Amino acid sequence: MDRQIDRELSELKKSLVQMAQLAEEAVRQSIAAVINRDSQAAEKVIMGDGVINSMENDINEQCLRLLALRQPLARDLRLITAAMRIITDVERIADQAVNIAERALELNLREPLTLPIDLKFMADLALEMVRNGIDAFIQQDPQLALQVWQRDVEVDTLDDEYIQKLLKFMLEETPAVMRAVHYIIIIRNLERIADLATNICEDIVFIVEGKVIRHSSE
Amino acid sequence: MDRQIDRELSELKKSLVQMAQLAEEAVRQSIAAVINRDSQAAEKVIMGDGVINSMENDINEQCLRLLALRQPLARDLRLITAAMRIITDVERIADQAVNIAERALELNLREPLTLPIDLKFMADLALEMVRNGIDAFIQQDPQLALQVWQRDVEVDTLDDEYIQKLLKFMLEETPAVMRAVHYIIIIRNLERIADLATNICEDIVFIVEGKVIRHSSE
Repeated sequence: MDRQIDRELSELKKSLVQMAQLAEEAVRQSIAAVINRDSQAAEKVIMGDGVINSMENDINEQCLRLLALRQPLARDLRLITAAMRIITDVERIADQAVNIAERALELNLREPLTLPIDLKFMADLALEMVRNGIDAFIQQDPQLALQVWQRDVEVDTLDDEYIQKLLKFMLEETPAVMRAVHYIIIIRNLERIADLATNICEDIVFIVEGKVIRHSSE
Repeated sequence: MDRQIDRELSELKKSLVQMAQLAEEAVRQSIAAVINRDSQAAEKVIMGDGVINSMENDINEQCLRLLALRQPLARDLRLITAAMRIITDVERIADQAVNIAERALELNLREPLTLPIDLKFMADLALEMVRNGIDAFIQQDPQLALQVWQRDVEVDTLDDEYIQKLLKFMLEETPAVMRAVHYIIIIRNLERIADLATNICEDIVFIVEGKVIRHSSE
């Protein structure tokens, strides 16, 4: 049973993976731009956002064409409508990379700060969630999706911990406040990226099992 | 030509409006909880979030049923898939209200601050965008949607201005830093609500005209 629609769905998944890889790379580069004080890398992230945006539009068209021409039902229908939501989330992940890159440009104009936080660790955690979320979509694996969804609490805990540390730091060294706040905003951007990965996973559980985990508590 | 699907689409729109009104009210109450130091109001916002979450699930089901049973084409298809995206945005707007309410609870435990910013003004601006965005969806009015979309720059400007003011304030009065940062985060929550309203409007222009404005620049 090699249906035409299966080939088209596999094309759709391939495009979605490409888009997600670009978004992931953008976040990685934006954090490297902060850590290495590399404004050129930051500019590249900002310039590169247009490619990801047009990929979103193309994939969205691809989905609408599939819905109109193949009139899919049940699981295929849920898969396509979820793909439309996932690309919105992936595009917003890329927007967070742009926000972080803009903070890098600001921070690089000022004296460097030595802060008691590990941005790369937090970024790696958030990006692993994104990558596994996309994998779960490709493999239609609700178990993996649930695992990613549950790890969001780790990023939330880190978010709290780092913000507490920055507040303490700010109280001790007032002249650095302005710069420290840029870091707070970056942390919130990362925390949001993890949330978006969680949203992606909710969609996958829904596609495969028709079950909504979005607002349940475990 | 009173088609069955037209009656169903009008039901869908009605549910979406109800959900949006609850989300709007939640944001309004959460800001009131900050301004009036009203922790009871904040608790109510946090408790009320479940209703909005289950509305999102119900409307999502309604959309999938429409797609499966009516197999809509062209404009109807775009309308339904956009409605699925819009309820996701509305639900995230309600989540921002919960975030703000949680900040209110924190702030109400400490001494009040007198700050040179007008949170209610910013909230009203963001909520007007949300309301007009939903109106534009109901009336299928891409012109109104574009207007809302263009007003996002006003909230962005206010966001910059208020954050600058808070940074200045923090530099002058160090012991208040911790509380001031709560305000910064609230401002960012509000700014995000306006962004979500902009996303909603992008979807409406797409439904009615099949034109993507999401990543264009004017």
